[in-house]
Amino acid sequence: YKIACLPGDGIGPEVTDSVIEVLNAVAEKFQQSFEMSKYLIGGCAIDATGEPLPQETIDACNSADAVFLGAIGGPKWDDPNAKVRPEQGLLKLRSELGVFSNIRPLTVFPKLLDASPLKPELLKDVDFVVVRELTGGIYFGAKNRGEDFATDECRYSIQEVERITKVACEMAMQRRKILTSVDKANVLETSRLWRDVVSRYVAENYPEITLEHQLVDSCAMKLIQNPSHFDVILTENMFGDILSDEASVLAGSMGLLASSSLGQGVGLFEPIHGSAPDIAGQGIANPYASILSAAMMLRWLNLTKEADAVENAVQQAIANDVLTRDLDATSSVTTKDATLAVIEYL
Amino acid sequence: YKIACLPGDGIGPEVTDSVIEVLNAVAEKFQQSFEMSKYLIGGCAIDATGEPLPQETIDACNSADAVFLGAIGGPKWDDPNAKVRPEQGLLKLRSELGVFSNIRPLTVFPKLLDASPLKPELLKDVDFVVVRELTGGIYFGAKNRGEDFATDECRYSIQEVERITKVACEMAMQRRKILTSVDKANVLETSRLWRDVVSRYVAENYPEITLEHQLVDSCAMKLIQNPSHFDVILTENMFGDILSDEASVLAGSMGLLASSSLGQGVGLFEPIHGSAPDIAGQGIANPYASILSAAMMLRWLNLTKEADAVENAVQQAIANDVLTRDLDATSSVTTKDATLAVIEYL
Ligand SMILES: CC(C)[C@H](C(=O)O)[C@@H](O)C(=O)O
Ligand SMILES: CC(C)[C@H](C(=O)O)[C@@H](O)C(=O)O
Repeated sequence: YKIACLPGDGIGPEVTDSVIEVLNAVAEKFQQSFEMSKYLIGGCAIDATGEPLPQETIDACNSADAVFLGAIGGPKWDDPNAKVRPEQGLLKLRSELGVFSNIRPLTVFPKLLDASPLKPELLKDVDFVVVRELTGGIYFGAKNRGEDFATDECRYSIQEVERITKVACEMAMQRRKILTSVDKANVLETSRLWRDVVSRYVAENYPEITLEHQLVDSCAMKLIQNPSHFDVILTENMFGDILSDEASVLAGSMGLLASSSLGQGVGLFEPIHGSAPDIAGQGIANPYASILSAAMMLRWLNLTKEADAVENAVQQAIANDVLTRDLDATSSVTTKDATLAVIEYL
Repeated sequence: YKIACLPGDGIGPEVTDSVIEVLNAVAEKFQQSFEMSKYLIGGCAIDATGEPLPQETIDACNSADAVFLGAIGGPKWDDPNAKVRPEQGLLKLRSELGVFSNIRPLTVFPKLLDASPLKPELLKDVDFVVVRELTGGIYFGAKNRGEDFATDECRYSIQEVERITKVACEMAMQRRKILTSVDKANVLETSRLWRDVVSRYVAENYPEITLEHQLVDSCAMKLIQNPSHFDVILTENMFGDILSDEASVLAGSMGLLASSSLGQGVGLFEPIHGSAPDIAGQGIANPYASILSAAMMLRWLNLTKEADAVENAVQQAIANDVLTRDLDATSSVTTKDATLAVIEYL
């Protein structure tokens, strides 16, 4: 398997190295072969080439079986008015690869209940997936800046809503078959389209699924008040950005949360945490979210037993208190320690 | 003082009656006079006149000193594709009155710590205000529905951003002088304008204020992880809708949260909870959010000692366990009981 590795900025390179080490261990144990090469994206790409996503990286991703991304951005490239910015690289990568569905599973590790801001009784049985539309909406609509105003257009087509609904439905069918579609249909025209299309598509193709619609403001409350209610949450790009980050606090740390971005072609896998410039280069970043993202990648490549083995190894490492600083403030476990623990439990 | 009362739908009429009773008691005690009349808005207005905001209501609001609104909407008028919908009445009211700033204070009553989904230690010292732009952005931009697509435009002008920034700054100056401006400047053109204008305006006019910028996804996390960090949160219409509802869960119940919507002219005061159709007509709705909204109204009318008296009375009622069902599941306190308690403590 050819894996394009895009370390990016901040702690990105450190956690990408962990993934490479773990995948090498998986290859050895399971007689697989992973060809992993590194390519530039984000701030480091701007510094080296002037562009946040060089053509060489796009080509490498397109000819790979899967892409692993560390993280992008940092204070050095933080000016939102700069012509060239790291995020443009990520947005362009998503659109070049056509990965229209971003999938973020949310489970709470019992060991980490203490780290969550929520009362533990609310976290029992929390187990849901956010399915976010990733290549449409206000992120990719026309933008305009006049002398004294600015505009962004949010646009969705029926086909864009249908294909992401299908992804969410397939996921729900493997789970509790409860689909919560989130919109702002009492205000937005795109949300009214969204709600119509989702309702019709689910009724026609997945009659076994229980579909509910929630307004985004109300969903932002229920995620905290009653998180165990949810099974699959389906939403558009901007709402998904906000709600999936909000949901991540339930787990106690972003350091455990993996994501995949899928379309027709190659899949993109990344931890949901950012580049964490404050701890970059110190060797103390939590690599578990990245390793779990690599496990999602293995599963997507149909390497099921390999994926299971990696997930189990991470679970064992956590159960045995191999916790980086974000999970246990008193700990001195390094990125390297945590990576080696996972490899050992493998 | 002329107060236009807009009871609306669901529990709206019940909590509006509580406000009227409390204001009558205030009038008597403080030798004031409030002339209160009721006008139609929302679903009941659609049923009676075909329109969610009849001209008579607009005229009455414009010639009043202040407007109190209960709540609007309900299952009967819930079809997002209906031509006429209750929410249109509320949006039109906001724009007709030009109330461009929505102000939602968030404090946590010690008595209600148990009702919050967050761990109590996180709620210590939580005391912030959300200042939401209310008459611009994607709510009021051009909408379009084609055969197979839909669009919504988000638009902001410099002047719209400046005037809401001024409101937030004035508020911050009365408080801890920390202003958190929330946007999505790494993706949206309107957010880049927002950030530019806020930065310049604060630097030029309020040098004592500490200004920080947060991305909306990150703010959605920090509101839960570290809510005591915030003092004044300033944001645009759509983000403000989501974040202020999210923030409301901290308090344990929406039943205590008041809001005001202000512009150049008359002010609009309403509880942030909705019409709660599930408990409408049963006489068990919590009237405190409405009574506290009336207190905000009194304060805005410069009736400071009257406002203080009402707020103290609500605090005493709560401290003496006059708690409706939303605050204490085992309670049988009715709307009437809670209202009478406030009047007694007055
Ligand atoms: C970096 C940014 C453009 C990105 C987004 O908003 O999509 C990030 O927040 C994410 O969720 O992956
Ligand atoms: C009813 C709806 C249109 C409204 C809004 O989105 O502004 C409500 O959610 C609010 O926050 O007052």
